[in-house]
Amino acid sequence: MRVAVIGLGSMGMGAALNLLRAPGLEVAGCDPRPAAQAEFVAAGGSAVGRAADLPEGTEAVLLLVVNAAQAAAALFGPEGAAPRLAPGAVIVNSCTLAPEDARRLAAEAEARGLLYVDAPVSGGAAGARAGQMTVMASGSAAAMAKAAPLLAAIAKKVWHLGEAPGLGATMKVVHQLLAGVHIAVAAEAMALGIKAGLDPQRLFEIVTGAAGNSWMFENRMPHVLEGDETPRSAVDIFVKDLGLVGDLARDVAFPTPLAAQAHQLFVAARAQGHGGKDDAFVIRAYQALTGIRLPKEG
Amino acid sequence: MRVAVIGLGSMGMGAALNLLRAPGLEVAGCDPRPAAQAEFVAAGGSAVGRAADLPEGTEAVLLLVVNAAQAAAALFGPEGAAPRLAPGAVIVNSCTLAPEDARRLAAEAEARGLLYVDAPVSGGAAGARAGQMTVMASGSAAAMAKAAPLLAAIAKKVWHLGEAPGLGATMKVVHQLLAGVHIAVAAEAMALGIKAGLDPQRLFEIVTGAAGNSWMFENRMPHVLEGDETPRSAVDIFVKDLGLVGDLARDVAFPTPLAAQAHQLFVAARAQGHGGKDDAFVIRAYQALTGIRLPKEG
Repeated sequence: MRVAVIGLGSMGMGAALNLLRAPGLEVAGCDPRPAAQAEFVAAGGSAVGRAADLPEGTEAVLLLVVNAAQAAAALFGPEGAAPRLAPGAVIVNSCTLAPEDARRLAAEAEARGLLYVDAPVSGGAAGARAGQMTVMASGSAAAMAKAAPLLAAIAKKVWHLGEAPGLGATMKVVHQLLAGVHIAVAAEAMALGIKAGLDPQRLFEIVTGAAGNSWMFENRMPHVLEGDETPRSAVDIFVKDLGLVGDLARDVAFPTPLAAQAHQLFVAARAQGHGGKDDAFVIRAYQALTGIRLPKEG
Repeated sequence: MRVAVIGLGSMGMGAALNLLRAPGLEVAGCDPRPAAQAEFVAAGGSAVGRAADLPEGTEAVLLLVVNAAQAAAALFGPEGAAPRLAPGAVIVNSCTLAPEDARRLAAEAEARGLLYVDAPVSGGAAGARAGQMTVMASGSAAAMAKAAPLLAAIAKKVWHLGEAPGLGATMKVVHQLLAGVHIAVAAEAMALGIKAGLDPQRLFEIVTGAAGNSWMFENRMPHVLEGDETPRSAVDIFVKDLGLVGDLARDVAFPTPLAAQAHQLFVAARAQGHGGKDDAFVIRAYQALTGIRLPKEG
């Protein structure tokens, strides 16, 4: 089976490497950055810079680009993959995007005789690298069946939420509400603790062993403790994803005061020039307000 | 060693039962409710209704009452325990209260020749019952040593944060910031998911296996899924505890926008008559705003 991965960033590269290891798949990667192409070729795959140059007759394409606009361009734009796909090929779209964008892309795929799985993922770069992502999928039985070998190679668990495109995207957006608020409140608690005279390392150890813990607190606060701003996921991702939460919530007429407040904190961190840093550094919004010293800072 | 537990609620009873099982301790319980006294006597302890009636020469007293006012009355009020305590006895105060209240009570203890450990706990009723609480303690070496047999019987882990009373209380307040926001955002995500057409049980299963999980999401949302309002911890507890977060934050001049927003949601649930219900039912604040149907409701 000829498969392709569009977007060889931290998530896409991890997924593509797992596809390379899976039996029976011939894997092409697509990314405009020569370094990403070279890394994937060195691992044994083939690579192109434009989706329009993917191998003719590709039967399944996994998208891990940043947003709906990039996904639409990579599939259906003038340099998009669509003309290279075999009839009845499946598009597995794992980008985080608005449910209405998932429905729009699925409709365009259907009009071209292609299958579509709305398939956002959780697990981060580490989960992608380990082939242990969680997939929140919706799509027809035919689309799910066609995508199965690809999904099996990248996920520890594939949830099938129903036939309708948009259900997967909705689930991911709700998930990101929790993820984003948990990161922001981890920063709020850590920053308040520092200001109130607690030792940040000790605070971390106590919380992670107690009922105040979250997956994000445990995963992200070590970056703050170590002063390591390298982005696993960036502040800008949550500027986008909590924006998607706000869009969905408004579309269904539902107030989300905590997500809205957390969004403002990520926007503030971006305003201060931290958009490209690890998302834990939303804590700099609190630092800017209060002048606290973070660990490892003078 | 003659020890006493003041407050035989869900936390205090659990701790008292573990003290009964510990070797070398003679345990008296104190609670105004005859049913609580009877339960503890049936388990093999002795029980009184007023702290002033505790056994003469009590060497360690554990407080698990609701707030600072109750703690002060139970120790130093006209019907308080202080006259029954042996010289050099240790007070272990495990109530959640403001750091300044912890400092005030510690000073009064010192003036009377008593030792004091500022010792708030996490772990909930289940942790108390299992003798597996996390204790966030501060106090002098002498106070910690005297309290050691008591703490060993009720805790899986005793953190010693320093000598100064108030450090334990500060840590607990910061912990409650996380706990309270995590419960409120769990409700926000669950309610948005319901409104957006997701299956709530499926949403729960996906989140608990993914990066959006928190201890509170996993522990509390089953109450919503089952429609079980029995309070393990009540909405009113977080009206109080997020109030303590606000007080501490203002005292040290630190804005906590997420905690403040979550507080308002618990206050709203209380306003609607849900103060005594399980804290997961802060979700009724969202229900009141949007008219969503919760699981198990018609």
